[in-house]
Amino acid sequence: MDVDIGNALATVASPGISRDALERLDEDVARAHERIEAGRADAEHGYEALNLPSRTDPDEIYRAVDRPEIADADALVTIGIGGSALGAATIADALSGAGAEVGVGAGSEVGADTADDGTQTVFLDNVDPEWITGHLETLPLENTAINVVSRSGTTAETLANFLVVREAFEDAGVDWTERTIVTTGEAGPLRELSDRHGLPALQVPDGVPGRFSALSPVGLVAAAVCGHDLEALLAGASAEAETLTGSLFECPAYAYGATTHALAARGASVNAMMPYAESLETYAEWFAQLWAESLGKDDLGQTPVRALGATDQHSQLQLYRAGPRNTLVSFVTPRERDDRAIPATDVDDLAYLGDASLGELLQAEFEATEASLAAAGRPNVRIELERVDAFELGGLLYGMEAACVLAGELAGVNAFNQPAVEWAKKATRGLLGGTDADGNRLEEADAVAEKTTLRVDR
Amino acid sequence: MDVDIGNALATVASPGISRDALERLDEDVARAHERIEAGRADAEHGYEALNLPSRTDPDEIYRAVDRPEIADADALVTIGIGGSALGAATIADALSGAGAEVGVGAGSEVGADTADDGTQTVFLDNVDPEWITGHLETLPLENTAINVVSRSGTTAETLANFLVVREAFEDAGVDWTERTIVTTGEAGPLRELSDRHGLPALQVPDGVPGRFSALSPVGLVAAAVCGHDLEALLAGASAEAETLTGSLFECPAYAYGATTHALAARGASVNAMMPYAESLETYAEWFAQLWAESLGKDDLGQTPVRALGATDQHSQLQLYRAGPRNTLVSFVTPRERDDRAIPATDVDDLAYLGDASLGELLQAEFEATEASLAAAGRPNVRIELERVDAFELGGLLYGMEAACVLAGELAGVNAFNQPAVEWAKKATRGLLGGTDADGNRLEEADAVAEKTTLRVDR
Repeated sequence: MDVDIGNALATVASPGISRDALERLDEDVARAHERIEAGRADAEHGYEALNLPSRTDPDEIYRAVDRPEIADADALVTIGIGGSALGAATIADALSGAGAEVGVGAGSEVGADTADDGTQTVFLDNVDPEWITGHLETLPLENTAINVVSRSGTTAETLANFLVVREAFEDAGVDWTERTIVTTGEAGPLRELSDRHGLPALQVPDGVPGRFSALSPVGLVAAAVCGHDLEALLAGASAEAETLTGSLFECPAYAYGATTHALAARGASVNAMMPYAESLETYAEWFAQLWAESLGKDDLGQTPVRALGATDQHSQLQLYRAGPRNTLVSFVTPRERDDRAIPATDVDDLAYLGDASLGELLQAEFEATEASLAAAGRPNVRIELERVDAFELGGLLYGMEAACVLAGELAGVNAFNQPAVEWAKKATRGLLGGTDADGNRLEEADAVAEKTTLRVDR
Repeated sequence: MDVDIGNALATVASPGISRDALERLDEDVARAHERIEAGRADAEHGYEALNLPSRTDPDEIYRAVDRPEIADADALVTIGIGGSALGAATIADALSGAGAEVGVGAGSEVGADTADDGTQTVFLDNVDPEWITGHLETLPLENTAINVVSRSGTTAETLANFLVVREAFEDAGVDWTERTIVTTGEAGPLRELSDRHGLPALQVPDGVPGRFSALSPVGLVAAAVCGHDLEALLAGASAEAETLTGSLFECPAYAYGATTHALAARGASVNAMMPYAESLETYAEWFAQLWAESLGKDDLGQTPVRALGATDQHSQLQLYRAGPRNTLVSFVTPRERDDRAIPATDVDDLAYLGDASLGELLQAEFEATEASLAAAGRPNVRIELERVDAFELGGLLYGMEAACVLAGELAGVNAFNQPAVEWAKKATRGLLGGTDADGNRLEEADAVAEKTTLRVDR
């Protein structure tokens, strides 16, 4: 990826960063880079994620999915949540081609061919019963493969959904053991299950938090089943890794990470990630998790907002241009895309459209929106890709992970844990009658009953 | 809708509002309510939106779609953007049933039946050429209806897409004039077109900004084609309108609007709208436009973030519980939903799941997340619906619009304009060679070329 931080300079925007401050910040970047390189060399928890492009073996993944019930399936159901779904969904969405997409949050099923080889992809990343039932009633179960992803093998949502999906297959007389692939840790219920049934099983790599695992089997099994080019994804990531040097002026990922850090410190508490490509909509969701869980701690962090150009010009732009001066807009735009002409019209007021293509209109919208923010003194950053393909996507995902790790170093937070989500997990378990590992009540569940209420009912 | 603001009180959260401050705020609410009622009585621009439940004639809409090429179509393509798409998509998404959904941002197509009568719904709300081509290649054009929505009839994205879609129909030998319905203003290119071809045409109501028009033909034509119950939608909205009184303690919509205003003033610059229902995912997008465009001006406003429970507990919750104290989380949860049991398992650690259903798990996740935020002193509000159906959805949309109008009154901003989006529209037009109404160059386009750059390339 290439990065242009010109519109984040203090000469353009407020908040913005001066060139002098950037030069000073670059000294911190150099120190942070040394720390990152040391962490990578020692395969430390978290830092190990930046080694995935050279550690991940695509052939191991290709071999694991190489049975006809999986590789030749008409549909693939991925069961996972958070980092166990977003990377895989981002890759499926970006590379599905021709705009036929999956949305992981939307959980949309796609009737049309979605993958290079036509595999329909569904991501069950929520436990809404009506939505799950809707999917199970419309999927061709007799020719559907199952991809279950959970490091611990105990993630409540994932295991509940897997139990439900297994039962649906059994009710339909379809042997799920022939068509299930598991990605999990070295031990736990999913590992035991795969051993018992001889399921193909891949490992969630050690030292890599879920939200940094897109370039491991966690993100790549679904891509392999769909016929995407894992080597190109990893090569793109490797090329991005090659750019990691001790200066933000030489490394696009560090330029992005350092700029977001500097602007957050100057009041940009919101980061609106706004790709100008429908195929990158799920990427914006992936980025949101990466940014929120990695940097949102110790009362620090920057709120990621998922946006989409040009659509959200008609939804969010008013706020970003004229609301509080607390938002950095991060554009992602490909330099090339397949285009389509806009037919001419005899309506005078619309004649200008007929001289253009949809791609030219979209590009003009992007440039206009970028300039409109700059003209109002609102900071923004441009991230450019050659096009949306496997190589460039691998680079984008790796680059954003490196940017996030750098931002964590600069802020002095541990980007690799997520302690604040544990409370609700315990409370959920306790509310459903579960206990801790020693069989004790979970006191978090009791706190739920003590809610303060001030109700205003219809 | 019912609203519980207990977890936004200062005794629970920071930022939070004390009961004393709420009492004082209620005097402002009373004054704002008088202003709102006067505006409604005079059918003033914007305020008129709150009269839609009694002004919209469902029979007029049913009649307009009552030709076999439209009413019996297998698929409906809605061409619109922003307020001309989000309301219709929200209704389609919420009422499609069984979890088969459309996402307007995702632009997802749905292979399964999506509407009560099985109509596949697609929303073309972006001009990405690859995505548009993907849809046109997979839609059954010979049995697809077209719903074009633009008040001015000149919206660049909408008209470009309509020109492209028309051509695709012509190329396929399908007469688009038999299967197109138009919703537009009293004049303009779309009005002229509908007159020329005798297309059924409905009017965007005067005095109602696009983002407040879900309960007019703008949002209801697609619902009518899909067989949803317009009377129930409008009745739910009317029931909510009945609750508008001069006190936040008696009106759920005002309780929500006043609380968000009070918390924004106390530092909650972010409002994360987090429904616990997949079918309400597009509602969160609709809310984001409503909140951002209406309140984001004069350096004021509150950044809406679209979230989804339980999924985003694994993406955003870390930030909202442990990041900056700048976020209000707004939950929406139905009290009833169709449920599905989780099968029992012989894995000890997962046994607690087998005693529950997916619905019970989702409800426990919601209560746990709400309590986990309260336990960390982070403000949140609960909005409850009986269930996700037409009546309750109509109430939710109306209630949020009324809340937004109130928040605008309390903040002293004009909730009904969006002046900051004009600059980019002019620049886009100028970049493509268009001129202003007098044939003059658009100087905004020239500013685009003057971009400040600081590039860091790979």
